[in-house]
Amino acid sequence: MRSPQPLRNGGDNSCSPSHNRRFQSTVAEHKLRRFNSLILVFRLVSFSFSLASSVFVLTNTRGSDTPHWYHYDTFRFVLAANAIVAVYSVFEMGASVWEISRGVTLFPEVLQIWFDFGHDQVFTYLLLSANAAGTTMARTLKEMDTCRASNAFCVQMDIAIALGYAAFVFLGLTSLLTGFRVVCFIINGSRFHL
Amino acid sequence: MRSPQPLRNGGDNSCSPSHNRRFQSTVAEHKLRRFNSLILVFRLVSFSFSLASSVFVLTNTRGSDTPHWYHYDTFRFVLAANAIVAVYSVFEMGASVWEISRGVTLFPEVLQIWFDFGHDQVFTYLLLSANAAGTTMARTLKEMDTCRASNAFCVQMDIAIALGYAAFVFLGLTSLLTGFRVVCFIINGSRFHL
Repeated sequence: MRSPQPLRNGGDNSCSPSHNRRFQSTVAEHKLRRFNSLILVFRLVSFSFSLASSVFVLTNTRGSDTPHWYHYDTFRFVLAANAIVAVYSVFEMGASVWEISRGVTLFPEVLQIWFDFGHDQVFTYLLLSANAAGTTMARTLKEMDTCRASNAFCVQMDIAIALGYAAFVFLGLTSLLTGFRVVCFIINGSRFHL
Repeated sequence: MRSPQPLRNGGDNSCSPSHNRRFQSTVAEHKLRRFNSLILVFRLVSFSFSLASSVFVLTNTRGSDTPHWYHYDTFRFVLAANAIVAVYSVFEMGASVWEISRGVTLFPEVLQIWFDFGHDQVFTYLLLSANAAGTTMARTLKEMDTCRASNAFCVQMDIAIALGYAAFVFLGLTSLLTGFRVVCFIINGSRFHL
């Protein structure tokens, strides 16, 4: 399903002469491409960190006498949040590449910008809450005997949580950019302004 | 320190006749007032919840043989985050009332909108991370003997955390609105568009 309209340039320049409008349209298209490329880079970084975090949690098992990540609800939450963000980032990177290469959004424009921003916001909060919860659990385990018995388990979990925070930072930055697109759409009727 | 300029109405309607511009300016002022009133209401609700949450944590002591909130780093974090948001909300409500009543921002316009949005974003994340950490600690205490020995302590802490989540929701909504003002300023050079 593709957006039927090509790149639009807002509705606030109806007084300009037609050649001026064509020039503005080209500049807007160029700016939009750069803007989308920046979003794509942020998504790639966010994907890398969330995938790495998921892998670090998932591989945190070392035999039957040491603790396992799946014995703790909180670490299951950390894994789930990071895995969801990784999968979502893959989808969004595909949508970004589609938009950059073809000049149109994957879904209709209005749906796409709200979809992106809504999911970015929700998943940013999800990732932060999972990592904050994970941090608390990791600190609690350090005060108990668990970390003394199996220090490697706690170290690996700390790394996984740190990677999750990094993914959160880049997803938060992405949500600022997609939020900008939403407001541009509300004001100008286009996902980017000149 | 006050913003020297009165309410501006962007720079994209230079083609309109002067009476049309005056009409648009009046409508924009009316809209801005409604928008600021909505922000004020959200801030008031957020303040109420964060203050209530702080009081619930602070009064969670019942004698020397029961647990105290200040024995747990996480609950100190919950209190600190909610108290910061409560104080910040009081300041911002004052700034909102000033803006609504006088038509100008407390700080210069550009500083005010970035100040509001930046702090809203940071404090929203702060509140969520504190509450997520608090939730994990409360769940951990339930699995240990602490809650069996003093159920009232755990119940009161659960209520405090729930109130903190409510404050987070309204502060998050406020940050969406102040984010809208920031993008309006970037696009139109004014904190609200027609």
